[in-house]
Amino acid sequence: MRVLLHGCNGRMGQTLTKIISTLNDIEVVCGVDKDTTKFINSYPVYSKLDEVKEEVDVLIDFSNHTCLDSILEYGKRNKVALVICTTGFSEEEKNKMYDASKFIPILNSANMSLGVNLVLSLVSQAAKVLYENFDIEIIEKHHNQKLDSPSGTALMIADAINKSLENVLNYSYGRHSKTQKREKNELGIHAVRGGNIVGEHEVLFAGPFENIEIKHSALSRDVFAYGAIKAARYLFGKENGFYTMQDVINS
Amino acid sequence: MRVLLHGCNGRMGQTLTKIISTLNDIEVVCGVDKDTTKFINSYPVYSKLDEVKEEVDVLIDFSNHTCLDSILEYGKRNKVALVICTTGFSEEEKNKMYDASKFIPILNSANMSLGVNLVLSLVSQAAKVLYENFDIEIIEKHHNQKLDSPSGTALMIADAINKSLENVLNYSYGRHSKTQKREKNELGIHAVRGGNIVGEHEVLFAGPFENIEIKHSALSRDVFAYGAIKAARYLFGKENGFYTMQDVINS
Amino acid sequence: MRVLLHGCNGRMGQTLTKIISTLNDIEVVCGVDKDTTKFINSYPVYSKLDEVKEEVDVLIDFSNHTCLDSILEYGKRNKVALVICTTGFSEEEKNKMYDASKFIPILNSANMSLGVNLVLSLVSQAAKVLYENFDIEIIEKHHNQKLDSPSGTALMIADAINKSLENVLNYSYGRHSKTQKREKNELGIHAVRGGNIVGEHEVLFAGPFENIEIKHSALSRDVFAYGAIKAARYLFGKENGFYTMQDVINS
Amino acid sequence: MRVLLHGCNGRMGQTLTKIISTLNDIEVVCGVDKDTTKFINSYPVYSKLDEVKEEVDVLIDFSNHTCLDSILEYGKRNKVALVICTTGFSEEEKNKMYDASKFIPILNSANMSLGVNLVLSLVSQAAKVLYENFDIEIIEKHHNQKLDSPSGTALMIADAINKSLENVLNYSYGRHSKTQKREKNELGIHAVRGGNIVGEHEVLFAGPFENIEIKHSALSRDVFAYGAIKAARYLFGKENGFYTMQDVINS
Repeated sequence: MRVLLHGCNGRMGQTLTKIISTLNDIEVVCGVDKDTTKFINSYPVYSKLDEVKEEVDVLIDFSNHTCLDSILEYGKRNKVALVICTTGFSEEEKNKMYDASKFIPILNSANMSLGVNLVLSLVSQAAKVLYENFDIEIIEKHHNQKLDSPSGTALMIADAINKSLENVLNYSYGRHSKTQKREKNELGIHAVRGGNIVGEHEVLFAGPFENIEIKHSALSRDVFAYGAIKAARYLFGKENGFYTMQDVINS
Repeated sequence: MRVLLHGCNGRMGQTLTKIISTLNDIEVVCGVDKDTTKFINSYPVYSKLDEVKEEVDVLIDFSNHTCLDSILEYGKRNKVALVICTTGFSEEEKNKMYDASKFIPILNSANMSLGVNLVLSLVSQAAKVLYENFDIEIIEKHHNQKLDSPSGTALMIADAINKSLENVLNYSYGRHSKTQKREKNELGIHAVRGGNIVGEHEVLFAGPFENIEIKHSALSRDVFAYGAIKAARYLFGKENGFYTMQDVINS
Repeated sequence: MRVLLHGCNGRMGQTLTKIISTLNDIEVVCGVDKDTTKFINSYPVYSKLDEVKEEVDVLIDFSNHTCLDSILEYGKRNKVALVICTTGFSEEEKNKMYDASKFIPILNSANMSLGVNLVLSLVSQAAKVLYENFDIEIIEKHHNQKLDSPSGTALMIADAINKSLENVLNYSYGRHSKTQKREKNELGIHAVRGGNIVGEHEVLFAGPFENIEIKHSALSRDVFAYGAIKAARYLFGKENGFYTMQDVINS
Repeated sequence: MRVLLHGCNGRMGQTLTKIISTLNDIEVVCGVDKDTTKFINSYPVYSKLDEVKEEVDVLIDFSNHTCLDSILEYGKRNKVALVICTTGFSEEEKNKMYDASKFIPILNSANMSLGVNLVLSLVSQAAKVLYENFDIEIIEKHHNQKLDSPSGTALMIADAINKSLENVLNYSYGRHSKTQKREKNELGIHAVRGGNIVGEHEVLFAGPFENIEIKHSALSRDVFAYGAIKAARYLFGKENGFYTMQDVINS
């Protein structure tokens, strides 16, 4: 599979370059980046998609949501599948993606980690089976430099659980000096901060006679690069349409 | 729902009696036990199924696999659904159950815990998605009086994972003084023993950039009684056929 | 060792009775309880300490802090060591205990669990060694019927850590919608509630290159009875003075 | 504090260089390495200790045990404290260190991680308090490329526990197809292998009514560099003598 790396000289682009160089079934044939000279790559780097001369099967994008128009145009013109790993798209931009996906296969997810997407699927199933008799709580742990709490991924997990339960849950962010019992429809979310923890998310299902825990631990942010490769392999040769990491998980 | 409790004066029968007495939608209308006088119950207890006079919707069995014939006959004759919670059936006995299930709904599982059955389903899915790049290990913990190792449940989990991977895995039961790397198709199983631990099973999926853990902890053996009630509710009113706890999970 | 069980017909008194009956070096020779007939015990039960005729080495008290005066008087008059397992003492009552401990050995602790008291000692040491470069957070988990949060034990642990650091820490009870980094002197305390969890307390020391976790899990409330026996064995034959479970740990 | 980095162009030497450059109270004033040109450092690098001209307070050694003689000689001649982070010393070499420590302060430990050394101290204390009624097991987890099992650190922990219990324990490395109860004096050691796990060590104390877990997780191998800096700060200005990381922990 021949890959065009869009945003090849960013942190994630370089991580992808390194990982793909160790694989046999996939090759970076060219890259695109505003800054074409920042790193010495083993493939040609262009400043614009227009300049690309190579034949390409899949474009992997780790640039910025503002590049969307040029990526969609390139994909449609050259019949190239698109794995779009950037986030922060407006509704209007998302609609552009859906429209373009009539002509080419496009995949986009808010979190490219295979593991996190699998966890979203597992906890949704577990919630449906267990909710009648179990209480659900989320504990997430991150390094002490993280600004937001709870983490975006903790909220993704909470929303996936809540959606599977027809949105009956209310989120609870810290209990203190309470003198009342837990409500049945509470979903406690706890944000632990300390040291250099890359990111851990634990979902606890606590029942009358048994507990189930589903826990995800990220070892490094390279996890997103790895998910993008999985996505590219999945998307190559697929029918036109819009896909997410959930499709990769379920394939 | 009117329940006949077969084996009502055993440990599990008494636990069921206590739990069901707190529920509104289900009632024990009579029991059967070899020893009819061991406990004082709020319902009549007979020494044989033949003597039962009450109208019954579901029979829950926590007796012994040798009672199978009488249970199947009673069920077929009275059109009563059967939740069979005993284990240790031979192939011949299992075939008798399948045959009888043409006439009445029958449910049987090696482990009646809702949580363990859910875990079997979750780890099978996770294994399929992750195996290409992840290593799988099982760590189980039990009290210091347990005779067998690894636990039967750990082997159930290992077999479920292996089956989902077309049986490519070899089980490995303890590493010591080895001077070699882990093989890709190893499935390590570790039996921790100590104190009064009721039972914990952790499945670790360890990948290049992220780990996923799925963990089940039993708080008490009452967990099996609770699963039987879930199964009875599921089975009541179902079409004739053979069911397992996996059907309860997936319903 | 001959034990007088004060409050022998309460829940903890009966648990102690059962456990001690399995031990060789210790025997309950008599009990005292308001309600002398509630249970059938293998030892005589009196309604008042005055009525006790037996020779006693140690009195174990699981009654109520209002009984303190009579216990201290009995102890001093008969030269009996006192293991006082009740809580909720006022400063005045505590001073009475200190005064009486000039004449007999007395042990009292807010939590009689051997494990919790060991954890208090371990986390205090760890905090002193690690605080310069590590962040400290406490996660506690309890059943969904618990009224207070965080748990009293979580606060005992937090206070022990804080005392070992000369009280530089501020407790933080839940982070939400914050857009700021963790402060160095924060001690996060997180109260997870669900199902039937008896009680878990985890202290996380998160550092730049490594994490240490110290975790206590109670399996049943019998843990307090067991601690009382350890305390009685420790106290028997000791010099007059006031002791706590920390002395038992360090012996 | 002025540091001489012996083995400055090795992996650990370079990690130390980077970390120390961010600190105010400590500075690398020169380095020694066989290969003087491998990296561009901000300090002069010599091929031999004889050539060093700078005034130095502490020498940190991450080279090889064969360099011991030259290091001890340099330390004694220049009254420089030595933090020796290499391992694999023979008894004879160890005796040379003890002899030299009459003239200068010397610190050496088999594992320079602050956390692991703290854990050694904590588990030894816990074992003494708990062993009478608790069972002890060690579970370690490492990446799938690790050759030896169990890990050297797991054995260090086991030995520390065993020493604190006067060596009554027998190590047990995997239970399989056993049909017998755990022996009281067993110490189970379990080696989990998978993915990219840097290194986790969990010590479980499982008792009749409560469990205690003490767990160490390494986030990166930089943890050893960090321990060396702690050791250098501790050793600077100390009296002549032989020290270990346990002294750093207890200070």
